[in-house]
Amino acid sequence: MCGIIGIVGTTEVASALYDGLTVLQHRGQDAAGIATVDGARLRLHKENGLVRDVFNQTSMSHLRGRIGIGHCRYPTAGSEGSSESQPFYVNSPYGIAFAHNGNLVNTETLRREMFEDDRRHINTDSDSEVLLNVLAHELQIQDRMALTPDHIFKAVAGVHARARGGYACLALLLGYGLLAFRDPNGIRPLVLGERVTPEGREYAVTSESVALDILGFKRLRDVAPGEAVFITVDGQLHTRMCAESAVHSPCIFEYVYLARPDSMIENVSVYKARLRMGQKLAEKILRERPDHGIEAVIPIPDTARTAASALAEALGVPFREGFVKNRYIGRTFIMPGQGERVKSVRRKLNPVELEFRKKNVLLVDDSIVRGTTSRQIIQMARDAGARNVFFASAAPPVRYPNVYGIDMPAASELVAAGHTVQEVEKMLGADWLIYQDLQDLIWAVQDGNENLKHFDTSCFNGEYITGLDQHYLQQIEMLRSDDAKAARRSA
Amino acid sequence: MCGIIGIVGTTEVASALYDGLTVLQHRGQDAAGIATVDGARLRLHKENGLVRDVFNQTSMSHLRGRIGIGHCRYPTAGSEGSSESQPFYVNSPYGIAFAHNGNLVNTETLRREMFEDDRRHINTDSDSEVLLNVLAHELQIQDRMALTPDHIFKAVAGVHARARGGYACLALLLGYGLLAFRDPNGIRPLVLGERVTPEGREYAVTSESVALDILGFKRLRDVAPGEAVFITVDGQLHTRMCAESAVHSPCIFEYVYLARPDSMIENVSVYKARLRMGQKLAEKILRERPDHGIEAVIPIPDTARTAASALAEALGVPFREGFVKNRYIGRTFIMPGQGERVKSVRRKLNPVELEFRKKNVLLVDDSIVRGTTSRQIIQMARDAGARNVFFASAAPPVRYPNVYGIDMPAASELVAAGHTVQEVEKMLGADWLIYQDLQDLIWAVQDGNENLKHFDTSCFNGEYITGLDQHYLQQIEMLRSDDAKAARRSA
Amino acid sequence: MCGIIGIVGTTEVASALYDGLTVLQHRGQDAAGIATVDGARLRLHKENGLVRDVFNQTSMSHLRGRIGIGHCRYPTAGSEGSSESQPFYVNSPYGIAFAHNGNLVNTETLRREMFEDDRRHINTDSDSEVLLNVLAHELQIQDRMALTPDHIFKAVAGVHARARGGYACLALLLGYGLLAFRDPNGIRPLVLGERVTPEGREYAVTSESVALDILGFKRLRDVAPGEAVFITVDGQLHTRMCAESAVHSPCIFEYVYLARPDSMIENVSVYKARLRMGQKLAEKILRERPDHGIEAVIPIPDTARTAASALAEALGVPFREGFVKNRYIGRTFIMPGQGERVKSVRRKLNPVELEFRKKNVLLVDDSIVRGTTSRQIIQMARDAGARNVFFASAAPPVRYPNVYGIDMPAASELVAAGHTVQEVEKMLGADWLIYQDLQDLIWAVQDGNENLKHFDTSCFNGEYITGLDQHYLQQIEMLRSDDAKAARRSA
Amino acid sequence: MCGIIGIVGTTEVASALYDGLTVLQHRGQDAAGIATVDGARLRLHKENGLVRDVFNQTSMSHLRGRIGIGHCRYPTAGSEGSSESQPFYVNSPYGIAFAHNGNLVNTETLRREMFEDDRRHINTDSDSEVLLNVLAHELQIQDRMALTPDHIFKAVAGVHARARGGYACLALLLGYGLLAFRDPNGIRPLVLGERVTPEGREYAVTSESVALDILGFKRLRDVAPGEAVFITVDGQLHTRMCAESAVHSPCIFEYVYLARPDSMIENVSVYKARLRMGQKLAEKILRERPDHGIEAVIPIPDTARTAASALAEALGVPFREGFVKNRYIGRTFIMPGQGERVKSVRRKLNPVELEFRKKNVLLVDDSIVRGTTSRQIIQMARDAGARNVFFASAAPPVRYPNVYGIDMPAASELVAAGHTVQEVEKMLGADWLIYQDLQDLIWAVQDGNENLKHFDTSCFNGEYITGLDQHYLQQIEMLRSDDAKAARRSA
Repeated sequence: MCGIIGIVGTTEVASALYDGLTVLQHRGQDAAGIATVDGARLRLHKENGLVRDVFNQTSMSHLRGRIGIGHCRYPTAGSEGSSESQPFYVNSPYGIAFAHNGNLVNTETLRREMFEDDRRHINTDSDSEVLLNVLAHELQIQDRMALTPDHIFKAVAGVHARARGGYACLALLLGYGLLAFRDPNGIRPLVLGERVTPEGREYAVTSESVALDILGFKRLRDVAPGEAVFITVDGQLHTRMCAESAVHSPCIFEYVYLARPDSMIENVSVYKARLRMGQKLAEKILRERPDHGIEAVIPIPDTARTAASALAEALGVPFREGFVKNRYIGRTFIMPGQGERVKSVRRKLNPVELEFRKKNVLLVDDSIVRGTTSRQIIQMARDAGARNVFFASAAPPVRYPNVYGIDMPAASELVAAGHTVQEVEKMLGADWLIYQDLQDLIWAVQDGNENLKHFDTSCFNGEYITGLDQHYLQQIEMLRSDDAKAARRSA
Repeated sequence: MCGIIGIVGTTEVASALYDGLTVLQHRGQDAAGIATVDGARLRLHKENGLVRDVFNQTSMSHLRGRIGIGHCRYPTAGSEGSSESQPFYVNSPYGIAFAHNGNLVNTETLRREMFEDDRRHINTDSDSEVLLNVLAHELQIQDRMALTPDHIFKAVAGVHARARGGYACLALLLGYGLLAFRDPNGIRPLVLGERVTPEGREYAVTSESVALDILGFKRLRDVAPGEAVFITVDGQLHTRMCAESAVHSPCIFEYVYLARPDSMIENVSVYKARLRMGQKLAEKILRERPDHGIEAVIPIPDTARTAASALAEALGVPFREGFVKNRYIGRTFIMPGQGERVKSVRRKLNPVELEFRKKNVLLVDDSIVRGTTSRQIIQMARDAGARNVFFASAAPPVRYPNVYGIDMPAASELVAAGHTVQEVEKMLGADWLIYQDLQDLIWAVQDGNENLKHFDTSCFNGEYITGLDQHYLQQIEMLRSDDAKAARRSA
Repeated sequence: MCGIIGIVGTTEVASALYDGLTVLQHRGQDAAGIATVDGARLRLHKENGLVRDVFNQTSMSHLRGRIGIGHCRYPTAGSEGSSESQPFYVNSPYGIAFAHNGNLVNTETLRREMFEDDRRHINTDSDSEVLLNVLAHELQIQDRMALTPDHIFKAVAGVHARARGGYACLALLLGYGLLAFRDPNGIRPLVLGERVTPEGREYAVTSESVALDILGFKRLRDVAPGEAVFITVDGQLHTRMCAESAVHSPCIFEYVYLARPDSMIENVSVYKARLRMGQKLAEKILRERPDHGIEAVIPIPDTARTAASALAEALGVPFREGFVKNRYIGRTFIMPGQGERVKSVRRKLNPVELEFRKKNVLLVDDSIVRGTTSRQIIQMARDAGARNVFFASAAPPVRYPNVYGIDMPAASELVAAGHTVQEVEKMLGADWLIYQDLQDLIWAVQDGNENLKHFDTSCFNGEYITGLDQHYLQQIEMLRSDDAKAARRSA
Repeated sequence: MCGIIGIVGTTEVASALYDGLTVLQHRGQDAAGIATVDGARLRLHKENGLVRDVFNQTSMSHLRGRIGIGHCRYPTAGSEGSSESQPFYVNSPYGIAFAHNGNLVNTETLRREMFEDDRRHINTDSDSEVLLNVLAHELQIQDRMALTPDHIFKAVAGVHARARGGYACLALLLGYGLLAFRDPNGIRPLVLGERVTPEGREYAVTSESVALDILGFKRLRDVAPGEAVFITVDGQLHTRMCAESAVHSPCIFEYVYLARPDSMIENVSVYKARLRMGQKLAEKILRERPDHGIEAVIPIPDTARTAASALAEALGVPFREGFVKNRYIGRTFIMPGQGERVKSVRRKLNPVELEFRKKNVLLVDDSIVRGTTSRQIIQMARDAGARNVFFASAAPPVRYPNVYGIDMPAASELVAAGHTVQEVEKMLGADWLIYQDLQDLIWAVQDGNENLKHFDTSCFNGEYITGLDQHYLQQIEMLRSDDAKAARRSA
């Protein structure tokens, strides 16, 4: 879960990259960075924190140039340190700055090859740094006399041949231009836009179309799976398919939770897809629990609101904002001699008690991952006086880890892993619990673009399109479990 | 628009004050501060910024003590500097820390009296510092031998006799306890809660009941207009009516816009009041425009969502979240040689285009103040392809400045001041525009508590319960106009 | 040990106060602050740290005004927190900002009176805050109609009647002017200067004349013991003796160690006084150890250099800079798994080995307090190959605590307290040790101004000019011992 | 003018590097950095500022590892930005961190070759980054199978073949060890030390021996001109001569001004060399001005103090510290409406007036560069009442720019360039002026080590040992002139 944006403009681009990152911020609030090309110099500023905190007038004024990339990071496997924020930079060959959304499943092999065969030192745990060095190496073995788009596309083909996983990438090649490419299965999203200004045509490539909207770029199309787009410093657009044909499998979690509702991904409106999720869920409820007796449909804000409102409409039951989200959550301070603290979920959500008292309420969330929050919310609804608390998930049970760039806990910490719906219902303490069916979820997205035949739904059914070996999932288990994280943090 | 909270606890209170301020943050994001009493010492930390940015582990660890107050500030008349964040402190008599929500209308007179008669120096433009010194003076003229609750209540009565305006106040009297009081008309809200812990009974007094909820305090009741509450350092509660009987006139804008929906103010649920505003508005639409042809009701997020959903339900028209709010708005950087910038409203809201295309949409906002944003939003809806754009305001036309602590522009900058609804409709560019009637707004609140006979509705009808002189509104005009603000900032 | 400066100028004074503080910085590196009067407002900025770190362009630009005071602090008894940096401010009466160099010996009594009789709250451990409140109270009981110089001088007389100790004080009285006064014994220094500019006459009052030099002010004279100087906002100078006649007893430690060599104090050049200390010491050596066999005189930099060079000249022995002072001492970091650390004195001084090898060297320091550093330095000289290491102190044995504002350890930690010179010689490990005689030290200063008949020499002979009670020295013992300090810091 | 230090230790080295940098700080106060090797990771922290400000507990705690390098920077040609602080890092091949003291005279050629032939991007103006990439390239073309000391020394030989100038370098080769090497003429200093600890033998390589002293390392010897020293991660020391034999020409300015007096460079005590400079100067004065009539010899602190004291001794004239250096110089703030400011030299030095009044004084400085400060100091001496002001420079006239790493202005800004001593005397306003003869300066150093036959004395006689082309000096002229600097800074 990261957001990326690259622009080849006709005037200074730093503030457009900044504005773009602010609307991609939901994809990663952990760190942010911008790199621009200022004549022969790379300008780079990155730091842990929100976009609005990372950049100030001083840092922005150094980010001169008409071409640049930006990145906001949500930590995935193993990458929590501040040195691992992006863009990354290597100076050989040419000088390359690199930003990436996604995750590789053969990082360890690549990392070993990089050092042993290519004598390239990787200084962080980030698979993005590995991917950058694979790209650098593939560029280095091209003909050294003059780097043409043809050489660049060959290098991307070389990357596809070595890397396995989901990845959408942006690279600044100093003196040449902006390179964008997407993994052969098209797991992670990447969209291309253009803007015509009095000074000429400008291009932007980014994770979500909202960034184009906000900047006044017109969405042209999604970058195709395996395709590379190269825009020269003087604004010439070159594109080429750089991978063998593979099954197009966009990540369905983008629609469920990750993307902003106002984005179009693969020509599907995320907002519409969520409305359809609500409809399908209503149909299932009416089918399975015709006498549901629900008196209010209450979303867990913010993501679930869209599906919940469609669900309420379809059920013919009032839609009520029973929970108010605290938008200004603070830190937790440990004070000596302090009394009882606010419960963690209470810091995030507060119930409007009148909406619960003596009612049968259906709480709707976009998905259930660990189940901890859901359990606390259900209890909160009961404490507010609800007679019966039902719970609906707009996505199917999450039972397998995500390996393509969405930060999800280890399988052992997923509440639904190895459990039936009835068992989960009991663990959460709901009067009843209902999950979306996977086929319904797929339909909800597919209905927006019939050309989409397949999705990455691995969290729900454990089918990993790129293939994985047993070893990899064990490793993930070790890296992502809470205990492992706590140990790393205190190191 | 400020938020205040005070606690007399049995253990350390700083982190509870902090948590409380985070849920009052919507009342003021400009500055924050906490003061606690640590033995004979006052501990104080305040700074410009959000609660989460103002406090860190170091500052929190200095805020020792079992009794304290917190404040978050939204700048009102003339108070923009960082030195004017609260709590304020004077060391004579006793040592008093003071936090305040509201505004006085006779500040200039008091300021002059303070200096000339009482030789007290006021070092800021803040009327809170004036009010603190009035209180300090009234305490100083009490018998000096031993300060009893009786003396304290007499001092509050002295404050009421001198101060005119809307004010809810908290004061720490070092060595004595926490004093809370509210203006004789009860314009600004103040609510009292208690929590029973194994170590004993604790009290909290705060602007909104959500802060009590989140901290596990039980809401006891609103502090009455003109009443003072004094809680001694060892937790004894004393209360007394300290003002002549006056018309109880709570600010109706708290229900329209300012308060969190999950708060109870004067025993009225803000959420319910907003639902009723939506219903009443629907009735008016059905009455005045029976053939409205609306295909989607779209709220301007976030405040209008509640009223809009009830309105949609009452009209029987789909409720659609057509605008997505950007939660991570960044700063505006001025870059040399930079091209076209994102329009200001575009940085805050992005339309889901499919919800507008070829539709007749009704946009709903809580109120219309300057009209600038509304006009841009209406245009955005048209750009997104709407066929007709109707606009509804859950509050009546705002035609007069607020003088009781809500930051609103000068009359000359209110779009409805001196204009008919038809003229405003035209200025905003709506196909039609509808405003809530004032009687309907009053009903929507009153329906929750029939004891409420009167409200401060001065922004709508220009009737100021405390009385004003001509001079005062002219002064406000000068202080609050944009030009005046720009001039002060650059000074 | 603090430095103070006040200016009544004809144009902005903040940068002159800043420059002045940088040359007073040797009197206190712990915290710094400036207060100015900007129309009716007090502007104040203070923080822990060096002058150059405390102020930046932003803070300076707020310090508008033609009249102001500055302070740099070396922590004395009990005042280590950041909230205790100066100037202090009270708003009643008039608004007073206050900066002070010195120490009171009846703080506890005054503190109690302040609260019980005057209901003034003192929020820090600083005796400066106490003194400010005594002054505030004395001003408050003057006639309230119009504050004349006469009233002000009466208030100062009131302060002298209540306060006991050594104090040089500056106070800004808002709307009136700058007040400066000095304790009746004139223990702490205070000097008055003037500068004539095209815009008119300006006055400055400060701890040391170097600050006048650097700012282009002409030194007029020292403020007399017990005298008060009041300069109105429009530059009128008023002076008056406000105390009963008392023995003039300037602190002799200013000449030994504290003041800059280029300062004139009581019309005595500090540099010349130190040269004379060296001469007298040489005479004693020649008298007591005619066959001293010293081959090089080596000062402990920086203060002792002046006396040592005169001593070498008088002995006819080469003067050699055998120790190089490290000007960029860093912090001590504790690193896990770290090997042996540099010894503390080694971080400050490094020997030039060739100057020690096989030589008889005389090390000269200005004084010996705890003896810890001296012992390490003597060992360092031996390690560098010295044959014999002799040690001379330009001041007599320090056997009693300083109670008038110089930070010195508790008596129990003074190496000479309760010990003979022979015992100290042995503890330090010197081949022989020689101390200046007190009469010679007095002569060295007196020779510059024969009107000086008496000095505060209490650290050497335990005679406290203001009188003390037994209780006070015990209290000091408790506050200043290292264990006590460590306990407070970790609290 | 930079300071470098590298350590291969048996335990954590970060705090030793930090302590070492604090005693090298006089070589560069502009920026500081430390890099350590922590397992397979490079840890790096660098920033603009003094060592004590650049590092804090957090940054230090990340600098884990038993091997590391540190750098403090004084800006030379063109390198003022914060991105140009050292150590620098490239990740290919192996991962190399690099720190450097000195300057290359063929940077532009190397920079072009780097990009065109080696496709390595240089992102700063720093010649250190160029030198690092030359080294990286030379390492990359070695056999890739296993990097032996032999390969490493071949790579250093390759660097010597390409680079021209004065350079002392430290490089961390990740996974291999610490490499140190010095230019073939040995212009810049580099010294090797060892320390035997219970855990084994440790090595340090650094600019000046004081850093060894302070850390308890024994000085073994200077690294020879053209020699490379390689210490493996497990502490094995390898050395080899890697350059053709060349004339050994240490920079004589290290003795005049740059180095600390307590350092040994090329087995010569800097302190002793300075004493001899004073003696020789005295001889010249006695020879040329036998009736000099000097009544006091007054050094310009701090560097000139050593030579001046020997000079005074040799003349038989009192040595007096007539100027007191302000150790706490602050920034210059520009305040609106501000009156006259302190003169720049007055902020740094203050005269002890009594030492000047009606005397004939000889002021002694280590050298005269621009002459601006000297002129102001002479005037200051006159203002203090001196009858005659004579001026002596312990170094000959500086007439040519330094191109080997000492920051000196362009020739056009050197007061002595193109002028006779009489002309300079007049320009400075001295009653008479005397310069050291070059042969005397050489003798003063040489007398400490008769093996030194030649020095880099190019600033005095324009003879550049490495050869230069006309173009280069013009370029320096353009880069270093004040106008050029001002233009760059405002860019």
